[in-house]
Amino acid sequence: MGAQSLRVEVLRIGHRPGRDPRLTTHLALAARAMGAARLHLQPGDPAITEHLEDVRRRFGGEFRVEPLKEWRSFLTSWPGTSLHLTMYGEDLDEALPRVPLKEPVLVVVGGAKVPPELYRMATHNVAVTHQPHSEVAALALTLDRLIGTPRGPPPPGARLEILPSARGKRVLERR
Amino acid sequence: MGAQSLRVEVLRIGHRPGRDPRLTTHLALAARAMGAARLHLQPGDPAITEHLEDVRRRFGGEFRVEPLKEWRSFLTSWPGTSLHLTMYGEDLDEALPRVPLKEPVLVVVGGAKVPPELYRMATHNVAVTHQPHSEVAALALTLDRLIGTPRGPPPPGARLEILPSARGKRVLERR
Repeated sequence: MGAQSLRVEVLRIGHRPGRDPRLTTHLALAARAMGAARLHLQPGDPAITEHLEDVRRRFGGEFRVEPLKEWRSFLTSWPGTSLHLTMYGEDLDEALPRVPLKEPVLVVVGGAKVPPELYRMATHNVAVTHQPHSEVAALALTLDRLIGTPRGPPPPGARLEILPSARGKRVLERR
Repeated sequence: MGAQSLRVEVLRIGHRPGRDPRLTTHLALAARAMGAARLHLQPGDPAITEHLEDVRRRFGGEFRVEPLKEWRSFLTSWPGTSLHLTMYGEDLDEALPRVPLKEPVLVVVGGAKVPPELYRMATHNVAVTHQPHSEVAALALTLDRLIGTPRGPPPPGARLEILPSARGKRVLERR
């Protein structure tokens, strides 16, 4: 388990608006639920940004989906470590001890076709298992290892709070 | 971390062939990569079964996607614990100590509309965070907690083995 105060953001390269809406929405929901601060989406997709804005208005927190035109300059100017998720990389667990936890971490998720230079540009190429995987699952497990699965009270600004329940649904609504 | 010898299978209820193909494929890939033995898919979807058969032929292991017409009798005759993933449930970490690790575990993933009786029929209703989440991410984290993320050599029968690499791609092919 990592440091809860570590700032982690996510960069998704090669999103295909219209083709990937549900998958990228799942990626965004997983990033938010697992404590990432931002999803930088290249190219941008207003439908996904708005969907996550709606989630934020109801469930609180600071997570946002921000559109990005050009990922190369964004990645090279990132002020900390970048971790590119790929089944070809090193074991995540072996790379993690070399990630400084005082600088922000950028987790990079490729799309259908990963630009080859990404393998050179990322600080580390890391694999969550060396098997064909879902990038949504790989992202969630990486965030779990970096900052731990969030527990406890809902994020600030939540209008809706789910109360844990053995059976059925309990929702607290703040007006 | 759980027991590597524990048998875990996944039940996906309410798949919509044609509408959910990529998402359910990701669910299946995550289930396989994280060590589940089966995905029982209700209703069945030959395209997804065949996609995962292709993965199995190349990357080995015993994972299969099996079609299921009726989930209620399947769930009630399950010989061990069932864990229904829902944001309304108990904390996964609080339920886990009550899961006997000598019986097989069934992780149940609802679709777009979760049948209300599922909340009564499952042994435990469990949440991975109480936030809107991706079921792909929630499944992967649950499998990580139950059996641990698989490491080490590829599963038996693999024709392709990915060799961990700091840069680029290294693939060992067995003919």
